Amino acid sequence: MATAAPTQTENQTQLWQQLASQLRIDSIRCTTAAGSGHPTSSMSAADLMSVLLASHLKYDFDQPDHPNNDSLIFSKGHACPLLYAAYKAAGAISDEELLSLRKFGSRIEGHPTPDIPWVEAATGSLGQGLSIGVGDAICGKYLDKLPYRVWVILGDSEMAEGSIWEGFNTASHYNLNNLVAIVDVNRLGQRGETALGWHTEIYAARARAFGWNAIEIDGHNIEEIERAYQQAEASDKPTAIIARTEKGHGAALVANKEGWHGKPLNAEQAAAAIAELGGGNDLLIQVNRPEDKQPATGAPGDGELPHYEKGGEKVATRQAYGDALKAIGGMDDDVVVLDAEVSNSTFADAFGKAYPERFFEMFIAEQQLVGTAVGLQNRRKKPFCSTFAAFFARAYDQIRMAAISQADIRLCGSHAGVSIGEDGPSQMALEDLSMFRSIFGSTVLYPSDAPSTAALVHAMKDRSGIVFMRSTREKTPVLYGPDEQFPIGGSKIVRDGDDAVATVIGAGITVHEAIKAADQLQSEGVAVRVVDLYSVKPIDSEMLQRAVAETGHLIVVEDHWRQGGLGEAVLAALAESGTAVTRFTHLAVSEMPRSGKPDELLDAAGISAKHIVAAVQAAQ
Amino acid sequence: MATAAPTQTENQTQLWQQLASQLRIDSIRCTTAAGSGHPTSSMSAADLMSVLLASHLKYDFDQPDHPNNDSLIFSKGHACPLLYAAYKAAGAISDEELLSLRKFGSRIEGHPTPDIPWVEAATGSLGQGLSIGVGDAICGKYLDKLPYRVWVILGDSEMAEGSIWEGFNTASHYNLNNLVAIVDVNRLGQRGETALGWHTEIYAARARAFGWNAIEIDGHNIEEIERAYQQAEASDKPTAIIARTEKGHGAALVANKEGWHGKPLNAEQAAAAIAELGGGNDLLIQVNRPEDKQPATGAPGDGELPHYEKGGEKVATRQAYGDALKAIGGMDDDVVVLDAEVSNSTFADAFGKAYPERFFEMFIAEQQLVGTAVGLQNRRKKPFCSTFAAFFARAYDQIRMAAISQADIRLCGSHAGVSIGEDGPSQMALEDLSMFRSIFGSTVLYPSDAPSTAALVHAMKDRSGIVFMRSTREKTPVLYGPDEQFPIGGSKIVRDGDDAVATVIGAGITVHEAIKAADQLQSEGVAVRVVDLYSVKPIDSEMLQRAVAETGHLIVVEDHWRQGGLGEAVLAALAESGTAVTRFTHLAVSEMPRSGKPDELLDAAGISAKHIVAAVQAAQ
Repeated sequence: MATAAPTQTENQTQLWQQLASQLRIDSIRCTTAAGSGHPTSSMSAADLMSVLLASHLKYDFDQPDHPNNDSLIFSKGHACPLLYAAYKAAGAISDEELLSLRKFGSRIEGHPTPDIPWVEAATGSLGQGLSIGVGDAICGKYLDKLPYRVWVILGDSEMAEGSIWEGFNTASHYNLNNLVAIVDVNRLGQRGETALGWHTEIYAARARAFGWNAIEIDGHNIEEIERAYQQAEASDKPTAIIARTEKGHGAALVANKEGWHGKPLNAEQAAAAIAELGGGNDLLIQVNRPEDKQPATGAPGDGELPHYEKGGEKVATRQAYGDALKAIGGMDDDVVVLDAEVSNSTFADAFGKAYPERFFEMFIAEQQLVGTAVGLQNRRKKPFCSTFAAFFARAYDQIRMAAISQADIRLCGSHAGVSIGEDGPSQMALEDLSMFRSIFGSTVLYPSDAPSTAALVHAMKDRSGIVFMRSTREKTPVLYGPDEQFPIGGSKIVRDGDDAVATVIGAGITVHEAIKAADQLQSEGVAVRVVDLYSVKPIDSEMLQRAVAETGHLIVVEDHWRQGGLGEAVLAALAESGTAVTRFTHLAVSEMPRSGKPDELLDAAGISAKHIVAAVQAAQ
Repeated sequence: MATAAPTQTENQTQLWQQLASQLRIDSIRCTTAAGSGHPTSSMSAADLMSVLLASHLKYDFDQPDHPNNDSLIFSKGHACPLLYAAYKAAGAISDEELLSLRKFGSRIEGHPTPDIPWVEAATGSLGQGLSIGVGDAICGKYLDKLPYRVWVILGDSEMAEGSIWEGFNTASHYNLNNLVAIVDVNRLGQRGETALGWHTEIYAARARAFGWNAIEIDGHNIEEIERAYQQAEASDKPTAIIARTEKGHGAALVANKEGWHGKPLNAEQAAAAIAELGGGNDLLIQVNRPEDKQPATGAPGDGELPHYEKGGEKVATRQAYGDALKAIGGMDDDVVVLDAEVSNSTFADAFGKAYPERFFEMFIAEQQLVGTAVGLQNRRKKPFCSTFAAFFARAYDQIRMAAISQADIRLCGSHAGVSIGEDGPSQMALEDLSMFRSIFGSTVLYPSDAPSTAALVHAMKDRSGIVFMRSTREKTPVLYGPDEQFPIGGSKIVRDGDDAVATVIGAGITVHEAIKAADQLQSEGVAVRVVDLYSVKPIDSEMLQRAVAETGHLIVVEDHWRQGGLGEAVLAALAESGTAVTRFTHLAVSEMPRSGKPDELLDAAGISAKHIVAAVQAAQ
């Protein structure tokens, strides 16, 4: 019997299938070589990945920074063997490097990180990839105005994470039709069936209710996958492709079987599975390149840092944050500001009014707030996010992961500490300094007045890593003149005397309490040194050592819980420098605060001027 | 013209309307008296509250601990003037106390806290109330088997929080038809219109897609409200009532006006609004009492803590956690265990298999995991939650709020530190000790072997506050015999010598590295003391002081970032005790870890035995 020559479509289909088999084989090979990893979670999405890689993704692996590259975000980061297999098929890594998976020193790690140049953002804490993709897509649609597309590969288990629905909500609000979520519904989570099993119609209904185009497909049917991608590319809404798949598809031993999550096949099992899959693993794909387009550039603005009169009218540092944001928005088109529905409290609205095209409302969705920022900085923007400092706790996992993503993002938390007053403890950040100090490579700033805030906001703009600033609700005196410099890592001595009997170290609101205390003590003939520790991390260790040497007694006063804030930062820096502190007093918040006036609460917490005076006197 | 006597229905309607007006009036009065607060956010929900309070809520204000009381959770905590006005209408507080709103010393705070006996959980960080209500509802339906109902009042702005959708998802998974979400769609957020405005049909579609019964109503139409509550009570699913309302409804000055969020009326404005609302404020309502039913009690189990052989087979502390959980499940019917889809990794599945009726799967939704626990402990259960320690970062805001809620919850985080190996940094908790130390009133435990883990799990059962245990992925030697005691706040000296030249302080995995180092040094004729600091908070300050006095040099070694963990806990305790440390070495994780074998990673991080030996030798 004669067979007809294959048509082009048949050839294409064969290629996709052959590539999918190879992606499965390589996912098995590298995890078996590693002795750990997630082959079955990779195999379920191999057909989806094959068609995407061979026919839809536009990406120049030689130019990972090309501004018009598509984004490919593996939200189900544990399925990275599939991603690495795709890199190999695209010629970006060698088979040898693929097989270095999970070995010490290899960039082919257990979950993807940007040590690999084609990985935009680290994943592995589930439910975060879509939020980041939203940031990339906002940039493409509204800022860079480039036709790149953002593809996010999601697992079905992670659809239980609320952050996913923040992403869905935000994507429809901004109508991100350049965003495609590919949901690999393989039914099996780590320890059994997911809540929704193979009910793809429920996932689709949820996506539609959140304003998305949703397409249900058989995730192993190559033609259905191809049609879905075409529809997504033509959609006027963000598109969710809900693909019913089998975990471990293609190898009978593991396909749709429980007990195979995060477990490699042994050598014998792997050999059988590879044979079952046809054995081929040397296909090389030419991935489509993006059009060589450059980002839109904005109109130049007008930027000069705000001026405040030393000793003049009181200004809240949160207001100075807003003033300075607006100013740096004029200096630099790459500054983008994100709000979580509190811009009138954080004063970020000053920027929003001046540069509405670079101001994005995330509504009350702090996880998305940070996710969007990570996506934007992937695209070389300089995002600033602001909300109440307490509410960054909602995004702590995203912030932790942003550090692993090597992201440069700037976060300003307002309304810190008991000094916010009547709103009570739910609104008072009292653990934020600790939170942010414990983030890898972070910078933590806590200015006390308007000029220092403005200078530090300016410095944040080009600072790398996770940069946090704490601002204060209450208006505070302007301590510094216009020519004062505030290098990150520095500090200021704001009161002193040759015969100072103690150094009082504060930051933010407590600097003002310390000054009041120093002035009162001065009137009683007792001199103290007062330090404004505006840079909490990095910290001015040399100043601390001098304070110990010259004044003996250190008094740290902070509007923060006793743990992880200024006090421990000071002790750690001194210990690291080998400086023994014999007299140390730590005034910090130790009881649950309540509603009340700011002064009442500072006093009740034992961190007001009165308590500082008492601490100095007690040591005399 | 003669008018007919009012029918009973008309009387009822008038009562509801009159009560709603009073609730509005009192919301205005108390915020005007305070000079701050959220009257307009209260006024939008006053009709919803009126019908609920007068005709549906079953609550005995004289017995707030009655097990069959309904739950009333104000997720939109800033609208608490309405809640307090309702307490007054129910006769629970006086008008004088209502007017103490936001004053220092009053329990009538800016956001509700359990200092008020009828408040189950603190709210004010938006999007958390539903998750907590899910916990209450799970308890009523599956554990206590009581007919109480859980009413959660939500704002529309907070529907953007992902945690809300974790709540929706979990409620439908457990088919909590005893749960009613009342969504006050007043259209206006803090700084303008919400993303969805008055599109109640979108909220309703989302709720339905998440498996709920959804009812759209006019939230100022008393009859529609009454019908909706009746339908909710008869529903075989959880019900969301999507109520279109006006912010500030009832007072023309503020009704549906922008710029009135979180802003009290001045005295004159208040007087006009109160007049417009009819002026009455002395209505007293008899709230329906619950049936006097008691919770179901479970069958007694069999509980004996597991035994491990000192020096015998290695056991991972995560496994000991599972063993001990199962044991205490037998000892105490109130122990309930919650999983976030990793119970086969955390070993919580040992409990799940033994006591499936007290084991609840939250899937991958850590915010809901903690929310459910808070709800369960409201109902006097003793919840244990477990997931990878890194992923508790996802619920840090919930944990922070749980402390304000005065909740007693137990959290165990597994897979901590670089010692997890190949999975890479996304899975490695390196900030968890810092996170949990900075939670008010918390307990932080980090045992190094199986017997100490089992003993501490047992101690966690009846410990109040937020209690965290960190467990280790790798199997570790059994250090302690069966009779050893592990009081919270204690520590153990596991190696020592009269002539010890240093004290090496570790916890968890690093205790074993320290022992290896001590044994090696011993063979070289150098004695060191090794301390197992299994209780990180509270910390054994007396032991630390002795270590300084007796050995001089302290070496703290921890599988955690340098900030906020063991090292700073030790420094803070010594500083508080007035003990100067002249020689202090801190071995901690300082660079971003990668994939690799546990030993390779401990070594690369500088926290292995080799580095401890070097630190001791360098100081000689």
